[in-house]
Amino acid sequence: MTTDNPVVGLINPGAMGTPIGCAALASGARVCWVSMDRSPESTTRAQSSGFEGVATEDELVARCELIISVCPPHAAVEVARRIAALEFKGLYVDANAISPETSRDIGALVESGGARFVDGSIIGGPPVERGTTRLYLSGPAAAKAQQYFAKGLFDVVVVDDIIGSASALKMAYAAWTKGSDALLLNIRALAVARGVEAALLAEWRQSMPGLAERSQAAVEGSVPKAWRFIGEMQQIADTLAATNLPDGFHRGAEAVYDRLSGYKNQTDLDMTEVLTALARPSTGQTGH
Amino acid sequence: MTTDNPVVGLINPGAMGTPIGCAALASGARVCWVSMDRSPESTTRAQSSGFEGVATEDELVARCELIISVCPPHAAVEVARRIAALEFKGLYVDANAISPETSRDIGALVESGGARFVDGSIIGGPPVERGTTRLYLSGPAAAKAQQYFAKGLFDVVVVDDIIGSASALKMAYAAWTKGSDALLLNIRALAVARGVEAALLAEWRQSMPGLAERSQAAVEGSVPKAWRFIGEMQQIADTLAATNLPDGFHRGAEAVYDRLSGYKNQTDLDMTEVLTALARPSTGQTGH
Repeated sequence: MTTDNPVVGLINPGAMGTPIGCAALASGARVCWVSMDRSPESTTRAQSSGFEGVATEDELVARCELIISVCPPHAAVEVARRIAALEFKGLYVDANAISPETSRDIGALVESGGARFVDGSIIGGPPVERGTTRLYLSGPAAAKAQQYFAKGLFDVVVVDDIIGSASALKMAYAAWTKGSDALLLNIRALAVARGVEAALLAEWRQSMPGLAERSQAAVEGSVPKAWRFIGEMQQIADTLAATNLPDGFHRGAEAVYDRLSGYKNQTDLDMTEVLTALARPSTGQTGH
Repeated sequence: MTTDNPVVGLINPGAMGTPIGCAALASGARVCWVSMDRSPESTTRAQSSGFEGVATEDELVARCELIISVCPPHAAVEVARRIAALEFKGLYVDANAISPETSRDIGALVESGGARFVDGSIIGGPPVERGTTRLYLSGPAAAKAQQYFAKGLFDVVVVDDIIGSASALKMAYAAWTKGSDALLLNIRALAVARGVEAALLAEWRQSMPGLAERSQAAVEGSVPKAWRFIGEMQQIADTLAATNLPDGFHRGAEAVYDRLSGYKNQTDLDMTEVLTALARPSTGQTGH
C-alpha cells in the first residue's frame, strides 16, 4: 500500500457500508473509518475488512478525498451537517434511502462546506458476488465517484447528471418492495382480526398463487427490519407528496412498520402474534 | 316453467349481476328484474338471459322470495333502503364490495322491513365456466341462500354464520388486487415525473422480473374501471380503520382511482399520458 492510493472515508461500516468499503479497497483505495464509540460488531467488521480506524471525523476529513455516507435514512442529514461543518473539500457521496429533496438539501450543505456532491443509492442486499447489487450515482461528478468503487462487487451505474435521480430511483423501487410488504402484512392482519384468514388463504391459493407464501416471507423478512424502514417510508411518502402524487400508501406503510418496530432483529417470529399485535396501535411498543 | 319455481329478484343485470341471475335460472328459479328506466345494455342482457321484466320495485318485492343486490358499492345502501321501505319479507342477499360494517347496516335496514339478511361477496370476474369465480355467503341464512345459486357457474361458498365475514373476505382480497394495482400506478407515475422511468424498468427487469409487465397490465386493466373502484377503496379503508389498522394505503388508492376516473371504459390508453395525468391532481377530471 503506497501513499499514492486514494483514501476513501466510510460512514459507516455496517451491514451495507462494509461491502461498499470493500469495493473501494478492491478498486485500489485505502479505506478509513471513525472507530471511536462504535459497536463491537462494526469494529470487528471494519478491522477484519482491512479498514483503517481514525480517532475523529476531523481526521477523516483531513485524510480522505472521498467520503461516502451509508446509514439509516433518519441520520443522513446529521452526518452531512457534521462533515460540512468540518469543511470537507473532497467528493461527498450520499448513498442513503432518502428523497431527492433531502438529497439536494444534503448536497447544498456539503457544498457550502467546500465539497462536491454526488447523489447515490443502493438497490439489492449486501453483495457476496457481482450481479446482485447496484450502486446508483447521479450528478455532475457521478462518473468521477464511480471509479472509486468500480472493481468491487457492486455494479456501479451512473443514472444521469442530475442530483436527485439516484435517490428518486431508490424511492420508486423501495416504494414497491417495502410498500407492498407492508400492504400484505396489513391485509393479513385484517383477515386475522376479522376471523377470515383461513378463507382468504384458501381464496389466494386458488386465484393468487404464491401470495400466501409472499405474506409469510414479509413477516420473516420485513418485520425484524421494520425499525429501519420507518424513516425510509417517510422519505418515500415525502417524495410522492413533493411530486403531487397520493402519499397515503407510504404513510400507511410507515404506520405498519412503526407498530412492528419492537420486533427489531428478532427471529422465529410467531406470525399470528405479530399480526394480532399489528392491529393494536402504539409507537414502537408492539414487540416484546 | 311452473309457478312452483322460486322467484329471485335481481338488482341489477349488469356485467356481474347477469351471470348471478343465470346461476339462479340454472338452479331452477325464475328471475325478475325492474326494467323501467334501464340502459339498453342492461335491457338487452336481461332479455337475452331469460329474465322477466317487472315494472316497479313494488312488483319485484311482491313476487320474489329472494332478492340479490349486485351494484357499485356506493349504491348498495340506497338499494337496501328502498327494498326495506317496501317491507320485503323474503331473503335479502347483498353481494357487493362493502365493508362488514356497511353490510351490518344494510342487514339492520332490510330486517327492520321484515326480511332475513345474508352477507355476500363475489371474488373473480363474470364466469364463463365453473371454477373461476366464487360467491361467498355468510350469516345464519347463508346455507339457505346458497341453494338458489348452487347449480350455476359460481362456486357458492358459505364462509360462516356471521354477518360481515363474506364482506371482510372481499375487503381483504380486493385490498391487495386493486390496492397493489394503484400502488404500482402511483410508483410508475413517480418514476415518469422524476425522469427515472427507464432506470426503474431496467432495475425491475433485473431484480423484480414481471413487475414492469404487471404495471402495464394495471394501466390496461384498472384505469378504465377506476371510476368503479373509488367506492370500493373507501369501503376497504373504512374496514381497516374499524379494525384499528392503518388505512392510508387505501385512502391513497382511492385518490389514485379518483384522479383516473375520467378514463371510464376507455381502451387504447397511452401509458405515458395516463401516468403524467396521475401526477396532476383533480377530481374525476384527469381523463379526456
